[in-house]
Amino acid sequence: MIGGSRVHDDVCEVAYRVGRLLAQKGVIVVCGGLTGVMECASHGVYDEGGIVVGILPGYDASQANRYVRIPLPTGMGYMRNFLIIRASQAIIAIDGSAGTLSEASFAISEGKDVVSIYPLNIPRTKEHEGHIYIEPDPQKAVDLAISLGSRWQQIDESTER
Amino acid sequence: MIGGSRVHDDVCEVAYRVGRLLAQKGVIVVCGGLTGVMECASHGVYDEGGIVVGILPGYDASQANRYVRIPLPTGMGYMRNFLIIRASQAIIAIDGSAGTLSEASFAISEGKDVVSIYPLNIPRTKEHEGHIYIEPDPQKAVDLAISLGSRWQQIDESTER
Amino acid sequence: MIGGSRVHDDVCEVAYRVGRLLAQKGVIVVCGGLTGVMECASHGVYDEGGIVVGILPGYDASQANRYVRIPLPTGMGYMRNFLIIRASQAIIAIDGSAGTLSEASFAISEGKDVVSIYPLNIPRTKEHEGHIYIEPDPQKAVDLAISLGSRWQQIDESTER
Amino acid sequence: MIGGSRVHDDVCEVAYRVGRLLAQKGVIVVCGGLTGVMECASHGVYDEGGIVVGILPGYDASQANRYVRIPLPTGMGYMRNFLIIRASQAIIAIDGSAGTLSEASFAISEGKDVVSIYPLNIPRTKEHEGHIYIEPDPQKAVDLAISLGSRWQQIDESTER
Repeated sequence: MIGGSRVHDDVCEVAYRVGRLLAQKGVIVVCGGLTGVMECASHGVYDEGGIVVGILPGYDASQANRYVRIPLPTGMGYMRNFLIIRASQAIIAIDGSAGTLSEASFAISEGKDVVSIYPLNIPRTKEHEGHIYIEPDPQKAVDLAISLGSRWQQIDESTER
Repeated sequence: MIGGSRVHDDVCEVAYRVGRLLAQKGVIVVCGGLTGVMECASHGVYDEGGIVVGILPGYDASQANRYVRIPLPTGMGYMRNFLIIRASQAIIAIDGSAGTLSEASFAISEGKDVVSIYPLNIPRTKEHEGHIYIEPDPQKAVDLAISLGSRWQQIDESTER
Repeated sequence: MIGGSRVHDDVCEVAYRVGRLLAQKGVIVVCGGLTGVMECASHGVYDEGGIVVGILPGYDASQANRYVRIPLPTGMGYMRNFLIIRASQAIIAIDGSAGTLSEASFAISEGKDVVSIYPLNIPRTKEHEGHIYIEPDPQKAVDLAISLGSRWQQIDESTER
Repeated sequence: MIGGSRVHDDVCEVAYRVGRLLAQKGVIVVCGGLTGVMECASHGVYDEGGIVVGILPGYDASQANRYVRIPLPTGMGYMRNFLIIRASQAIIAIDGSAGTLSEASFAISEGKDVVSIYPLNIPRTKEHEGHIYIEPDPQKAVDLAISLGSRWQQIDESTER
């Protein structure tokens, strides 16, 4: 799950809802572990008793928001963004600016699919790149991401990278 | 938890026991997620219903051993070893060769303490570096690591890095 | 210098020209070291006797194109893209798709300026983020990037990060 | 080239001499770019008109010692140590403590050979791991490292990794 570190109330509600829906499906949610969309979504996962992994930019586990169950400091600064993508089978993007765009376009270039709740404009020109799906409905976005993620696992099992 | 990817039966038993003891204390265990000591310890955590985070060298979550609850591919090869250190509050080392020595000495240089079940010879020359403790008894090693890890957290909370 | 690994002849000519102009100014050019825009620009630097640093995705220095003077394998795959940004004082972007967009938007989020020869649409919403400048003329793009890069150095010298 | 960030005068002289010898052979020297052994060796390379690449822990090129021709900030802290190993074809180790041991043992585990001027005790147990050579004479150490490095290149060219 990727998104901005600053968030308006309406986007926070969407992120919270996405968090709850992911946890209801038993999905482990990997995110950046800090504020904004990350915290709103983590809150939703937490309220359903699910697990949030927070991949943190600094050296201190205590940086994580209170809903992160598994804080993982990296000391890599914002380069930790790309470890979130590497660790995930599918990506849900919720709002955000340059940082989120950077993560989403990295996902595409790594061959992973991105479901974005809000518009996100990324060119895709190579055959092995991932796809962007724009899906404003949280329930449909979660279902789509789960279906795309399980497809990734099947590719993993059948091919060598 | 760090250790070799190949393991003798007696070392595997020790690693399994360390895994059980850590899980009994409610500790989330971060390791490299593959074979050998990592798998033996993961097995112990699993049998106590605990959580193992496996920080993987490749791109595929399916590389992880079967006891890893949260597989996190990194695509960084053995450089992922140092993310295990960054993510941990204290380190338990169980056997291993050059790779494990590399992780343990990196931990020392990052200011983190290492409890090693087997002898491990690392010079420590700077005042801010971590300490090596050799403790062959699994129960005592686990207790010591937990106590050192909670000390790290207190340092985190009281100082800026 | 960032750009796509596949390139049309006209874009290659632009990249070659940018490489020559940078080398004439004594700039050390850091890029991904492979094919496409990277190779065309490296060729230009080489023909002026300049230095190209190629930060490579794999483990082998021999992956680099023939014009790279200093090949630096990283073994991090495309995560090496972000080391190119970290190593640079200003960024020139020439064409490219998702991978290049990912690098450019990471640069913006790290507070570095990007001069793009071709259109590149990246939102910038936080006060400490870098700026995108669209400048289709190679000579003007190079002059602008050098001026922005020297500004970065002055910031470095006057502030702690 | 790896070694400690603090250095006694006699070790500094050895490092300086190693730097001169490497530059005389036309070798590009990759190091951590800071103080101590790194600076002494960089000084030697500089005095012969050679090129030093400094892979830096922070965000600022101005951290580098004055003899570094190509400063490359990484923002990864001491994890940048392992990028030095990845970027090099052979390693010369000069003194140092836990940090240097961490780099040298990582090199061994990545299959790269290490020539150490001072004693360095690293177990090597797997067939694909690199070797440690202890060679106190700077001239012989440099010749050995160059010969081992060119062997690595031949392996690169003949095999897929």
